[in-house]
Amino acid sequence: MQYTKQEIAEMDRVQRIKFINAVSGVKAANLIGTISDTEVTNVAIFNSVMHLGSDPALMGFILRPTGEVPRHTYENMLANGSFTINHVNTGIIKNAHYTSAKFSDNESEFDLCGLTEEFVTGVKAPFVKESHLKIGLEYVESIPIERNGTILVIGEIIHLVIPENAIGEEEDIDLAAIETTGISGLNTYYELKKLDRFPYVRRHEVPDFKVL
Amino acid sequence: MQYTKQEIAEMDRVQRIKFINAVSGVKAANLIGTISDTEVTNVAIFNSVMHLGSDPALMGFILRPTGEVPRHTYENMLANGSFTINHVNTGIIKNAHYTSAKFSDNESEFDLCGLTEEFVTGVKAPFVKESHLKIGLEYVESIPIERNGTILVIGEIIHLVIPENAIGEEEDIDLAAIETTGISGLNTYYELKKLDRFPYVRRHEVPDFKVL
Repeated sequence: MQYTKQEIAEMDRVQRIKFINAVSGVKAANLIGTISDTEVTNVAIFNSVMHLGSDPALMGFILRPTGEVPRHTYENMLANGSFTINHVNTGIIKNAHYTSAKFSDNESEFDLCGLTEEFVTGVKAPFVKESHLKIGLEYVESIPIERNGTILVIGEIIHLVIPENAIGEEEDIDLAAIETTGISGLNTYYELKKLDRFPYVRRHEVPDFKVL
Repeated sequence: MQYTKQEIAEMDRVQRIKFINAVSGVKAANLIGTISDTEVTNVAIFNSVMHLGSDPALMGFILRPTGEVPRHTYENMLANGSFTINHVNTGIIKNAHYTSAKFSDNESEFDLCGLTEEFVTGVKAPFVKESHLKIGLEYVESIPIERNGTILVIGEIIHLVIPENAIGEEEDIDLAAIETTGISGLNTYYELKKLDRFPYVRRHEVPDFKVL
């Protein structure tokens, strides 16, 4: 099926949301943990966490400020400068997905979604105990994307928990070994199966694809 | 294994690049196609393509301006305002990966990596014929991330090719059905296996996780 710009604009709204949220390909499934200045914890699923740079170690995510859940995450982050990113593994996809409900201010998604808070010295925000790979970050800055009112939120890694069994071939991180999942669109969860690994490519090492 | 901010800063450079590139979770594997004003085509693998919004339909990717391959992509994009994003499927992971070599100005990665150019009326940049899900975009703007010198490049979807067999349950896009792949870090490719699908969540529909 082919769609022009005009056909995309005229698409049913829900259909467009489904299609356009999925066409970028698989997205990382992560839980972002925060805590308010009155010590109410919050955890919410995000499918927009990204790598931004390794030195300094920066990560980002896209915030749609209209949503109720992201608003708590962002308010907490601004209040105390701390947040955590926790991989969603195959065992907690349902718990993770239901954190997207609009809970009230005095409800914690940890309790209501069957997830456990975990605290580490030096990081104010809660980690998700059930997660296998967890990252503590310091809030750095917010960059507005004026074209559609979203915000790129940036943090620097200050604490990193990587399980031993995640360290694979040539010290790459093996996401399949720690059961990290991916998301398509907003609703569908995938597990990962390792296909292959290729080296850093130098020009003279490119194989002759014409004879392969 | 646990790492503090200080330990991350003191890590061996290659080790840090590997770890920090992987901790955000799985990343979409996409080929970005462009064409120069002298009609030399270019195609390069990117692991940073993201969804930015569905109305208007915006996508972005992170550019590290120091690399030779991204430079061609970006120059071409600025020259004629056109680029394509093409999912890397399981059958072309090796071809896709080797586009990251530093080819010279008069070499096309299409030829040298065994990929085929495909043109569509209204989109100047080449699509990748072997890809199953393909997107034609109009360059919108570049937002500098001053903290580390990278750039968030934004485009608007003007043409969308989605195979019939990608349309799954409740019109979600089934990435496994079209063999779309993901990347961990810079070198490892994963196939996707569908686990489950959950609905949009309303507060009163949250299950009681304490009794599950």
